[in-house]
Amino acid sequence: MAFAMHRFLASAIVLLATPSTASAADWAIAIHGGAGVIERADISAADDAAIRADLAKALDAGTAILKAGGSSTDAVVAAVAALEASPWFNAGVGAVFTSAGTIELDAAMMEGEGRRAGAVTGVKSTLSPIALARTLMDKGPHVFLAGPAADEYAREVGLSQVPNSHFMTERRRKQLNDLRMRNQGASLERPEVRMGTVGAVARDVKGTVAAGTSTGGLTGKSPGRVGDAPLVGAGTLADNRCGAISATGSGEIFIRTRVASQICDAARFGKVPLQKAADTTLAEVLALGGDGGVIVLGPSGDGLFSFNSAGMYRGRASAKGPREIKVYGDE
Amino acid sequence: MAFAMHRFLASAIVLLATPSTASAADWAIAIHGGAGVIERADISAADDAAIRADLAKALDAGTAILKAGGSSTDAVVAAVAALEASPWFNAGVGAVFTSAGTIELDAAMMEGEGRRAGAVTGVKSTLSPIALARTLMDKGPHVFLAGPAADEYAREVGLSQVPNSHFMTERRRKQLNDLRMRNQGASLERPEVRMGTVGAVARDVKGTVAAGTSTGGLTGKSPGRVGDAPLVGAGTLADNRCGAISATGSGEIFIRTRVASQICDAARFGKVPLQKAADTTLAEVLALGGDGGVIVLGPSGDGLFSFNSAGMYRGRASAKGPREIKVYGDE
Repeated sequence: MAFAMHRFLASAIVLLATPSTASAADWAIAIHGGAGVIERADISAADDAAIRADLAKALDAGTAILKAGGSSTDAVVAAVAALEASPWFNAGVGAVFTSAGTIELDAAMMEGEGRRAGAVTGVKSTLSPIALARTLMDKGPHVFLAGPAADEYAREVGLSQVPNSHFMTERRRKQLNDLRMRNQGASLERPEVRMGTVGAVARDVKGTVAAGTSTGGLTGKSPGRVGDAPLVGAGTLADNRCGAISATGSGEIFIRTRVASQICDAARFGKVPLQKAADTTLAEVLALGGDGGVIVLGPSGDGLFSFNSAGMYRGRASAKGPREIKVYGDE
Repeated sequence: MAFAMHRFLASAIVLLATPSTASAADWAIAIHGGAGVIERADISAADDAAIRADLAKALDAGTAILKAGGSSTDAVVAAVAALEASPWFNAGVGAVFTSAGTIELDAAMMEGEGRRAGAVTGVKSTLSPIALARTLMDKGPHVFLAGPAADEYAREVGLSQVPNSHFMTERRRKQLNDLRMRNQGASLERPEVRMGTVGAVARDVKGTVAAGTSTGGLTGKSPGRVGDAPLVGAGTLADNRCGAISATGSGEIFIRTRVASQICDAARFGKVPLQKAADTTLAEVLALGGDGGVIVLGPSGDGLFSFNSAGMYRGRASAKGPREIKVYGDE
């Protein structure tokens, strides 16, 4: 397997692409735990190891399902739920705090064969927002629920409920307090306040792709703020005609840029390679003042990471490729 | 000015396209008041006249701004706000009821030069949701606010507040009661329960396009349900590289189909004429079991309506074209 690495001077996009060699029976999965200011000087060896271990646990949870012939949707939910349960990422346990000192979670799930989708925003008490998004995708009738209605729906369908404090960690509370001390509010320009959105993309042996994203959003965000993660075509997209995409970054700019849609559509309508489509779209994000990254899995299972931030927690595995876990931009 | 009308047997898409002849100084605007089961047998002559008069009022409000050299954003807000104030459409006054007997309003605004956007969902007390979306677009820091946070933001910036009952009409309450009598819940297959979303697209003399959409959603919807209208790339999109789009129809399916994004991107990346891009996308909506319509204004001011429902409340005007107000599919 050959990898091409491009680092552009202007945008510092790092791209790791696998050539398209997958057969119909190939499975593949890629995960991310957020992109941002991730540098060796800021992360101790012990933390680095713990983060990689939790990334591996999530990757392996999805991989086991795909290897056994399970669906890409099941694999994505398993991987994202594992990342939600880890305190290291900004989703589920360890999510960032709103300006009100609460935690409000967003998630979306989509599968690429029937282009079914489920999405939630403002979740406060449902243990796994990605499981909730998936249930909404399967059972409907609506695709997207906001606020208390999302948790109510979860209770009605029997999904585990927890107090909002279940998601809170001291590290994230300190981030909110630091922000308050500086009296800055939710500055969208500070990448460290929103690092850690999680996501997964997968392709199963039947050839169906799926994508899922889960996040606490932005430290100090206004309660009720909706980011790109739960928006089909912004932070999350699966369409067998172009692939599966999960994004992490400056949510407001990712919405305006329709990141996942532009990547999918440049490939599908413009016949642009997914790698170039992801590059170009993230360059557009950068031009509008944002940063972040995406994981993309093409219809034939070729996977790529693209980000214009210093690092991105990421991993991938496939029927034919190596199992990789990476953190820094230069890995 | 020549018009081409296509009526496809399978999808009954009606398309009215103006050839691209606009110069840099041309302005153009198109509006809609929803697509659905709109047939002569169901609408009295008096109601027909009243509906057309309110469409004309909205169209003229936007036109006056564009003629005076105003921005496409101002024109769209003026046109949509006029439709919100009319009891005939499912936005603002006259919006449909949720299953809880409340009214929850969604809106989005986007301008195509800087691709700035603002969106709200679950608005209960702000007189003009489109004005709120526009303020969010201008002032931020967030792009998208859900639930009580949206109304709180509106109060903070001084936008007019009204009791939720201000939006309620007997006609819509009866629609909810009829639905309850039939014990059907919010059946997404019943087009008449969601007719009347409003929207506008405009191009100003500087060549910037803008789009805005405002709606009460679906009769009997779950509180907290988010439809396509407030989602950038689903129900609303403006991008000077492809045009401005506002949609109305089966919200859940419009989200999954990313209607506005696909139309824009097929034109931009695939070099498909906007007319064909809109047709093809609405055919995809139909294939997934949905229906509805879009209004589209290309970068050079060429405007088109496309819908696969029996009728669509619509109007348009431009520097060079006629002023038109239409209701039925065969007009």
